Amino acid sequence: MVGQRYLTLLRDHPWFRLSFVAASPRSAGLRYAEAVEGRWHQTTEIPAEFRDLILADASDPAAAEGRCSLVFSCLEAGKAEIQALELAWAAAGHPLVSNSSAHRGTADVPMIVPEINPGHAALIDVQRRRRGFTTGFVAVKPNCSVQSWLAPVHALREAGYAIDRLVVNTFQAASGAGHPGVASLDLIDNMVPYIGGEEEKTEREPLKILGRIEGEDLVEAEEPRISAHCNRVPVSDGHGAAVSLGFSGKKPALAEVAAIWRAFRGEPQERGLPLAPPSPIILREELDRPQPRRDRDAGGGMAVSVGRLRSCPVLDLRFFGISHNTVRGAAGGAILMAELLAARGYLP
Amino acid sequence: MVGQRYLTLLRDHPWFRLSFVAASPRSAGLRYAEAVEGRWHQTTEIPAEFRDLILADASDPAAAEGRCSLVFSCLEAGKAEIQALELAWAAAGHPLVSNSSAHRGTADVPMIVPEINPGHAALIDVQRRRRGFTTGFVAVKPNCSVQSWLAPVHALREAGYAIDRLVVNTFQAASGAGHPGVASLDLIDNMVPYIGGEEEKTEREPLKILGRIEGEDLVEAEEPRISAHCNRVPVSDGHGAAVSLGFSGKKPALAEVAAIWRAFRGEPQERGLPLAPPSPIILREELDRPQPRRDRDAGGGMAVSVGRLRSCPVLDLRFFGISHNTVRGAAGGAILMAELLAARGYLP
Amino acid sequence: MVGQRYLTLLRDHPWFRLSFVAASPRSAGLRYAEAVEGRWHQTTEIPAEFRDLILADASDPAAAEGRCSLVFSCLEAGKAEIQALELAWAAAGHPLVSNSSAHRGTADVPMIVPEINPGHAALIDVQRRRRGFTTGFVAVKPNCSVQSWLAPVHALREAGYAIDRLVVNTFQAASGAGHPGVASLDLIDNMVPYIGGEEEKTEREPLKILGRIEGEDLVEAEEPRISAHCNRVPVSDGHGAAVSLGFSGKKPALAEVAAIWRAFRGEPQERGLPLAPPSPIILREELDRPQPRRDRDAGGGMAVSVGRLRSCPVLDLRFFGISHNTVRGAAGGAILMAELLAARGYLP
Amino acid sequence: MVGQRYLTLLRDHPWFRLSFVAASPRSAGLRYAEAVEGRWHQTTEIPAEFRDLILADASDPAAAEGRCSLVFSCLEAGKAEIQALELAWAAAGHPLVSNSSAHRGTADVPMIVPEINPGHAALIDVQRRRRGFTTGFVAVKPNCSVQSWLAPVHALREAGYAIDRLVVNTFQAASGAGHPGVASLDLIDNMVPYIGGEEEKTEREPLKILGRIEGEDLVEAEEPRISAHCNRVPVSDGHGAAVSLGFSGKKPALAEVAAIWRAFRGEPQERGLPLAPPSPIILREELDRPQPRRDRDAGGGMAVSVGRLRSCPVLDLRFFGISHNTVRGAAGGAILMAELLAARGYLP
Repeated sequence: MVGQRYLTLLRDHPWFRLSFVAASPRSAGLRYAEAVEGRWHQTTEIPAEFRDLILADASDPAAAEGRCSLVFSCLEAGKAEIQALELAWAAAGHPLVSNSSAHRGTADVPMIVPEINPGHAALIDVQRRRRGFTTGFVAVKPNCSVQSWLAPVHALREAGYAIDRLVVNTFQAASGAGHPGVASLDLIDNMVPYIGGEEEKTEREPLKILGRIEGEDLVEAEEPRISAHCNRVPVSDGHGAAVSLGFSGKKPALAEVAAIWRAFRGEPQERGLPLAPPSPIILREELDRPQPRRDRDAGGGMAVSVGRLRSCPVLDLRFFGISHNTVRGAAGGAILMAELLAARGYLP
Repeated sequence: MVGQRYLTLLRDHPWFRLSFVAASPRSAGLRYAEAVEGRWHQTTEIPAEFRDLILADASDPAAAEGRCSLVFSCLEAGKAEIQALELAWAAAGHPLVSNSSAHRGTADVPMIVPEINPGHAALIDVQRRRRGFTTGFVAVKPNCSVQSWLAPVHALREAGYAIDRLVVNTFQAASGAGHPGVASLDLIDNMVPYIGGEEEKTEREPLKILGRIEGEDLVEAEEPRISAHCNRVPVSDGHGAAVSLGFSGKKPALAEVAAIWRAFRGEPQERGLPLAPPSPIILREELDRPQPRRDRDAGGGMAVSVGRLRSCPVLDLRFFGISHNTVRGAAGGAILMAELLAARGYLP
Repeated sequence: MVGQRYLTLLRDHPWFRLSFVAASPRSAGLRYAEAVEGRWHQTTEIPAEFRDLILADASDPAAAEGRCSLVFSCLEAGKAEIQALELAWAAAGHPLVSNSSAHRGTADVPMIVPEINPGHAALIDVQRRRRGFTTGFVAVKPNCSVQSWLAPVHALREAGYAIDRLVVNTFQAASGAGHPGVASLDLIDNMVPYIGGEEEKTEREPLKILGRIEGEDLVEAEEPRISAHCNRVPVSDGHGAAVSLGFSGKKPALAEVAAIWRAFRGEPQERGLPLAPPSPIILREELDRPQPRRDRDAGGGMAVSVGRLRSCPVLDLRFFGISHNTVRGAAGGAILMAELLAARGYLP
Repeated sequence: MVGQRYLTLLRDHPWFRLSFVAASPRSAGLRYAEAVEGRWHQTTEIPAEFRDLILADASDPAAAEGRCSLVFSCLEAGKAEIQALELAWAAAGHPLVSNSSAHRGTADVPMIVPEINPGHAALIDVQRRRRGFTTGFVAVKPNCSVQSWLAPVHALREAGYAIDRLVVNTFQAASGAGHPGVASLDLIDNMVPYIGGEEEKTEREPLKILGRIEGEDLVEAEEPRISAHCNRVPVSDGHGAAVSLGFSGKKPALAEVAAIWRAFRGEPQERGLPLAPPSPIILREELDRPQPRRDRDAGGGMAVSVGRLRSCPVLDLRFFGISHNTVRGAAGGAILMAELLAARGYLP
């Protein structure tokens, strides 16, 4: 499904043109439309210009030689297998932006949210030097569950407010598990207070994203300590997050928090990247917003909508955020990262 | 809907016999079946023996003289009006157990969860003396949103572990808002991160329930400080709660928490009250339980199911709880309280 | 909600510019944004250019004098009241296109589906003459429940295949009842096999739409006889319809039905009206399509998607159709009708 | 899931005692609780007395020798494999009642709905004689999709009203596809107008059930001709059916239809079989009932609830029915059939 979302988002992209699709050896040789027959799950049709692309074999980077200047990876396989394959593509000269979690923990692979840590792109230079890559590299995006709240947290840190503790409860959409994914019997008149592996990622990945480059190394942030409760709810698209957080030093007034969020702009906005939402953080004032169905498409699915800003009796501050998990949280977030890397000169 | 649930729960009650129903002056004089025509929302039929009960006028306690030895109140009106009317029924000699929030803040009105604070029944003696009530009194149950997590918290406190901070996220069912209640357009492919008044109740009421009687006064507990995020999800019945809590003194190991919860019994269990679930806290070991549809009916809808017991990186302990909001959280909880008060000798 | 949908659809309309909004006397004088505060139910924001429009009093057509050359009506009131008010606006010189059902049965008021019976616009001439209207008139759109299947039926009739019997089961979305509309407790883990008044409209209105003009009169079609089972299902937008129909004369082969539907174009397509979908009937070949969430937005929400074309063992032919009930079935259908009337010269 | 439902329904059965469970060779040797770990999908716990049953190998009827006097089969495998295996169990002397569709078309295997065609049990004598079975036999229940409407149709036929045409639209619950079954993304804000193989079964099976025994043969009924539109809706349990039907001879008035349904009793009711609902057809008078969540549990999940009785403009009569697809439509229906066969003397 992430692959399908790439196609709909790349269709009219001003910089990138989809010219090559690779898949498992089993599907190689099929036309794209044949390969996804009965499994196309977008609400728009397969773009006509992509229907007849012949699938190459993703296990063979040589097949792409001379045909791609940028590769998006959303492989499904074991962690070690994905790691090896993505490095093989990079070694073959391909800049590779990945949705997979396989390389998120790899020290010289940057994990980038373009509005938060665009400077981590510098790790690509380290990676190329250490591994002998020329034009190729591997960069990754984080798990979709952090997109609904990490930009607002970053904006406060950037404004000088140190955050040392954070409790987040997620309300995650079914599309996060792909198709078929979650059984309908689990989400009719029901919710599930568990998503395998999700709490670990939600607690660990922000520390890398919020880390800083020292010399050749990425030093992970030491705070905030994060406690994540990850829950699946009967929603198709749009992850929600209810956050309580505490400041270690001075504490902003609520009005200042609101002002910081409204004013926040990142490098994608400054550079005017194609998929950058004009306002990356949209603050809603209605008491009962944001909501997944009504706010997931804000900013073309690329903005984070926040609301219910109020103080917290236990920590300091509370809010609720919504972002689109298969746009900003997957294909859209990866394309924006590729745009950033292109603008910074990392694509051939 | 709460009134309807009373009828289904009282149908076969071994101690109580429903003999009298009162409603707004507008409905007075109607047969019960006529009054609820087109608005009966239970999944079982109106018990045949109650169909022809003639509704009395709830604004006139005299109408019930000599006909009731116990009154359940689930009035819908303004706060001041409910307060006055419930006191009028008590003054007329009726023991009254209320689902309304009107008197929850009244100093000499006990708010009782039978497994947690049965001793608060002693406030009834104070209330009678101060207000000149003879056989009558007013007692209340707390908001449904605290039922899914307060008994587990109490069990830990009772075992000697002081809890000073607690962050709770609720996943509340649509039935909590009655019928018609929440619009279907708000809960199809959606959730709502706000329920009016609910967070205030969830943060305040536990302190009264966990308080202690000193002389004639109820002294509210000073801790835990509570931060509540209350959310509506597309579930018919069954409120969920994700809790992170911190201990101020010694901290139990997870295995000890599990043992405390499994062993926990309260006065309803000791007395063998009719609606008391054998195990008030049911600890589930599956990774993905409890869930509302699968666990709300545990213990006849009167037990709390908990699971996902694990340590918390920010506070100390985390868990997820489910309880049935219209059974334990409303009519069932009130009936169990009435059973307790009967067993303690407060009914004539 | 229909009014809100008009705003989003008219925002960028090439022919029409929204300049005037009227509402109940109670709301008159408010800014639009104030009037809908807390009740804006679209997934996009209130268009900024409409936020500050001051609401006029809809009960006073004089207030609009000189300010509108076309009026869309989606009044909520009693039938007689709407009838009188819509005629008053027409008498005051306003061309009025209505979403209300009040005038659907009025003999000289055309009920138009632009692809089906554009010629019924001629009734406007009759209406003007009989009632002494100059530039004004009243025209109406049919109930949303017929949009998912009537165009495919019409296309077969137009191709020479007479249809005399039709059984239709509808799967109607919650938005058809507006907000708050259907209670969430009625649509969680549930469907409702009844919608008040809907079966009568579904059985009656097609006969007027399929009727013919004879002299000054609209003669309703005598067939098909229609049997409608109308059901509410837990879907936000998008009405479905499962149809079995019988031919009275020659019967087309399935392949011919498919060819007729694929080739079908109406006057909106020929004239290139702004909201006309390029293909008004989209035939899907997947076994399990169309579906409401995946197909309601086809053709910008203005196309009908059909599928499951197969023969019927009882009547002759079966199919399933989906259309967007608040776009094609409400505001979008009315705007397309206004475009048609403009193109035919009925607007001043 | 059907197997699990058997356990909950057999737990307190007055005649049958569950003593033996067989499964695929892969699971053989495991305790029952181990085998279903993480896959127990009932809302009550695994009955304690069954947790430690050791699973036998279902492919080996000899393993059951002397341990069972009745076998329920809900095998999942290819049709030919199930046919062979069920016959092998019968040949080994076991009376076998099957939920599988494999033998529904086999001429000498009766397909029984106990209230409709109890006399088809006589086919067991034929089957035993022809196949040389002694105490063993194979009998089957029909597809769950016919349970919500076939008993009401049968009651009218039995009262002397011949029905020759019938159009049925089903609203089928997710549990009909088992777990994981339908993907949640297919049923959030959506319905699916297709269920593989279901329309064929719904159109064919009733003719066998309504057939008559002539000598040694079952002669299928020639009417009604049936047209089925089978649809999946976001409901956990409870299949709905909207029916239009036509009479070939005299036509009953609506009041007579109501009287026939209210008075209808079958052999299970006359014999007082344990799982027989007192009223197999429950006629609801509310305009908007029956509904799946509110009516599926009527009669312990064994009754059919009908409503919306009205005439049909195309055929003659219309109604809507609900039955519980995993109780009456699966395990419960099979147990009732076994009770019938026991009462008729077919069990050793």
